[in-house]
Amino acid sequence: MADQKKMVEDITSMEVDFAQWYTDVVKKAELVDYGSVRGCMVIRPYGYAIWENIQHILDGMFKATGHQNVYMPMLIPESLLQKEKDHVEGFAPEVAWVTMGGEEKLEERLCVRPTSETLFCEHYAHIIHSYRDLPKLYNQWCSVMRWEKTTRPFLRSAEFLWQEGHTMHETAEEAIAETEKMLGIYADFCEQYLAIPVVRGKKTDKEKFAGAEATYTIEAMMHDGKSLQSGTSHYFGDGFAKAFDIQFTGRNNTLQYPHQTSWGMSTRIIGAIIMTHGDDNGLVLPPAVAPVQVEIVPIAQHKEGVSEKALELRDRLKASFRCDVDLSDNTPGWKFAQYEMKGVPLRLEIGPKDIAQNQCVLVRRDTREKTFVPLENLEAEIGRLLTAIRDNLYEKALANREAHTYTAHSMEEMKKVADEHTGFYKTMWCGDLECELRMKDEIGVTSRCMPLQQEDLGKTCVCCGKPAKHSIIWGKAY
Amino acid sequence: MADQKKMVEDITSMEVDFAQWYTDVVKKAELVDYGSVRGCMVIRPYGYAIWENIQHILDGMFKATGHQNVYMPMLIPESLLQKEKDHVEGFAPEVAWVTMGGEEKLEERLCVRPTSETLFCEHYAHIIHSYRDLPKLYNQWCSVMRWEKTTRPFLRSAEFLWQEGHTMHETAEEAIAETEKMLGIYADFCEQYLAIPVVRGKKTDKEKFAGAEATYTIEAMMHDGKSLQSGTSHYFGDGFAKAFDIQFTGRNNTLQYPHQTSWGMSTRIIGAIIMTHGDDNGLVLPPAVAPVQVEIVPIAQHKEGVSEKALELRDRLKASFRCDVDLSDNTPGWKFAQYEMKGVPLRLEIGPKDIAQNQCVLVRRDTREKTFVPLENLEAEIGRLLTAIRDNLYEKALANREAHTYTAHSMEEMKKVADEHTGFYKTMWCGDLECELRMKDEIGVTSRCMPLQQEDLGKTCVCCGKPAKHSIIWGKAY
Repeated sequence: MADQKKMVEDITSMEVDFAQWYTDVVKKAELVDYGSVRGCMVIRPYGYAIWENIQHILDGMFKATGHQNVYMPMLIPESLLQKEKDHVEGFAPEVAWVTMGGEEKLEERLCVRPTSETLFCEHYAHIIHSYRDLPKLYNQWCSVMRWEKTTRPFLRSAEFLWQEGHTMHETAEEAIAETEKMLGIYADFCEQYLAIPVVRGKKTDKEKFAGAEATYTIEAMMHDGKSLQSGTSHYFGDGFAKAFDIQFTGRNNTLQYPHQTSWGMSTRIIGAIIMTHGDDNGLVLPPAVAPVQVEIVPIAQHKEGVSEKALELRDRLKASFRCDVDLSDNTPGWKFAQYEMKGVPLRLEIGPKDIAQNQCVLVRRDTREKTFVPLENLEAEIGRLLTAIRDNLYEKALANREAHTYTAHSMEEMKKVADEHTGFYKTMWCGDLECELRMKDEIGVTSRCMPLQQEDLGKTCVCCGKPAKHSIIWGKAY
Repeated sequence: MADQKKMVEDITSMEVDFAQWYTDVVKKAELVDYGSVRGCMVIRPYGYAIWENIQHILDGMFKATGHQNVYMPMLIPESLLQKEKDHVEGFAPEVAWVTMGGEEKLEERLCVRPTSETLFCEHYAHIIHSYRDLPKLYNQWCSVMRWEKTTRPFLRSAEFLWQEGHTMHETAEEAIAETEKMLGIYADFCEQYLAIPVVRGKKTDKEKFAGAEATYTIEAMMHDGKSLQSGTSHYFGDGFAKAFDIQFTGRNNTLQYPHQTSWGMSTRIIGAIIMTHGDDNGLVLPPAVAPVQVEIVPIAQHKEGVSEKALELRDRLKASFRCDVDLSDNTPGWKFAQYEMKGVPLRLEIGPKDIAQNQCVLVRRDTREKTFVPLENLEAEIGRLLTAIRDNLYEKALANREAHTYTAHSMEEMKKVADEHTGFYKTMWCGDLECELRMKDEIGVTSRCMPLQQEDLGKTCVCCGKPAKHSIIWGKAY
């Protein structure tokens, strides 16, 4: 067990320094490496495999709801970015500009896409002519770039991977319904597959996306009580359509502007997985996206028949699970620590005694609970345990969120609770920007969302005391 | 049939103008749209779905041979690009340079990756320390950018999508074996799945990749006799490893440099599919990558039970094939032309008479052959026909290649045959750059490859008459 202690000692405890714990885990679990461009990360095989599993599930959900994938150029001419006024104000300060092609200075600067509304609009203007061409339900998987000052792997990086859906609809109602539907898909994905409970809500005007009429969000609480915006869905009205002159002949034979949405989820969600479920032994991965769901560790593997049995089990289990076997020379203790660090949901131990009794040992990553399982029941038992792990992770995260959710009715209460605890702070709000800015200045919190399920927490705004319009959640955000 | 004629008239005939035919097909089949950045294309849903199918198959082949996916940054600092002398000479003239981040001028220019050897090397220097860390078998799916002067969709574009494998090995032998293995995977993929026959060969020094010791290639012949380099695999020796200071402790406890490969296939291969199999009615897609393998067209669809039967068949066939049904108001004639344009391998027609006889009609895209099929045999018959289509496409392409392959023994013969025919020109070659340059200047052909299966076509170089070292294929290339 010396090896195991050694490895655990290599990472900082969450309680001592959560930020350092995070950095240690992403390095030790071999999720990322740093490259030489500030804020750009190398996503290593184990990290990328998590993203591939996320992609696979989400892409299936998108296609099942009628969406199609496309690919837009990675560069946007400055004049195109400038077509929608709010949008360019929001993004121009944080883009990377291409100014040279080979030896030649370009006549017009091109930015590396920070998001692709403008490109989709340009294309939609070419292909949307009649109501028969609607809806257009497009999505793309790509990388985008935002020139951030301070960066952290997955959470905030100059370049990140994401998907961006961009849709066009005949009516405002249909577009709003799409915006809500995609938020629902994100929420279901987080809760069912990632075991991350989320609050579904609407952003304030201050926090909404540059150019959007309304931004919907799912907000998750990390283990340290801070908030992470985990997916967003925007309703644009016909603002971009007007800016880009996208018109179609409607059913009544008049020219109309279509109504637009966009929605995105990024590699940031891997940061959410780490900070929601991880512990002092490293990553804890939800089974649905774990690159390896079952790691087989042979015990006394030099003894006759052990390696063979381990390989046989691997081959058998591969049909049903993502399964791997470690036959390296490292000690079992080292291997236990290694696969705990990597957050593998289940460890399967098999040694000579187990073989004699036609059984093996399954050890859960989340609870460390051990079960002796007859080999004939193995698939069923693994299936049951993986489901139990997902359920337990979800319940734990929900309990953490509930334990760190506070309600305040006045600025005094807000100050006190925000000084003492990090979490979601629920209050009523009048809807004025001024109060939102005061919350930031005086308390150091930002609005996370106005939950879709509004609560009646009182009649007056926590800040100004005037009549309240919304219940709202504030937090300290990643 | 008026509609059908109309649509076909919209595209230029191959015989009249092959280049215009190509452009017409990519537009009319809705594969791409042009954006506002010169040389960057929008890949539309139908085009992107072909790429997704290609990705799915290739990725499976890569993973089955032990490769893992990663993601590297899209930007490369100029100093990093410059580390390997030949490499920077090859690529610096054709990259896009980022010089501004937000409002700030960058201290060092960053190029948008034209290829990622330098980034992989930087990462490998961090993670390769011992022979136990080898081999590293990484691949990435991404977009790259090369600032080309003249561009054509898929064939040559400023930005394109590809995969790039980058591997590191303990010995030269192992790296060379990997280079050859990956060439074999590309060749098998093209021949088995895309029905495109390829010649496997080695590039001349002049044509090899910037920084490589050896470049292997698969070369395909398009319908017009011109050549298309369809996939390449490079052996680097330890040149990059030395430039990037990647060293490992070997089995004998000395420090050694690892041996490296890279290999790539891009969206260019979609251009190869179009130009190998297409005809004057539009695209002809190999079934393995066709977004829709069977398009169901109801006949007299307003008659009772027809639409229902078409939908029922769609639902039934979806379990086994990529299948779609067109219930739009367009005429059957319009639909026939539309799905021929889109290259759907099989059209399934079903009307009242067919329903009465419990049968349907299957029409092959490649031969237009019609078969009446009892509904109970449908899956088996579709499976059989899809295989037959692949086989027929392959045989036709091979026959075209054989019909357009010429042998020459002297410059006089070369001149004559190249004036009269476009195709593969097989000759012997002394191996000197001077002769290669003369072939370009005097005949207007470039070396495609020295086939791995060398032929004895004579004893002397076609150009200088000195003793020959290799059999070689020349061509006019895309």
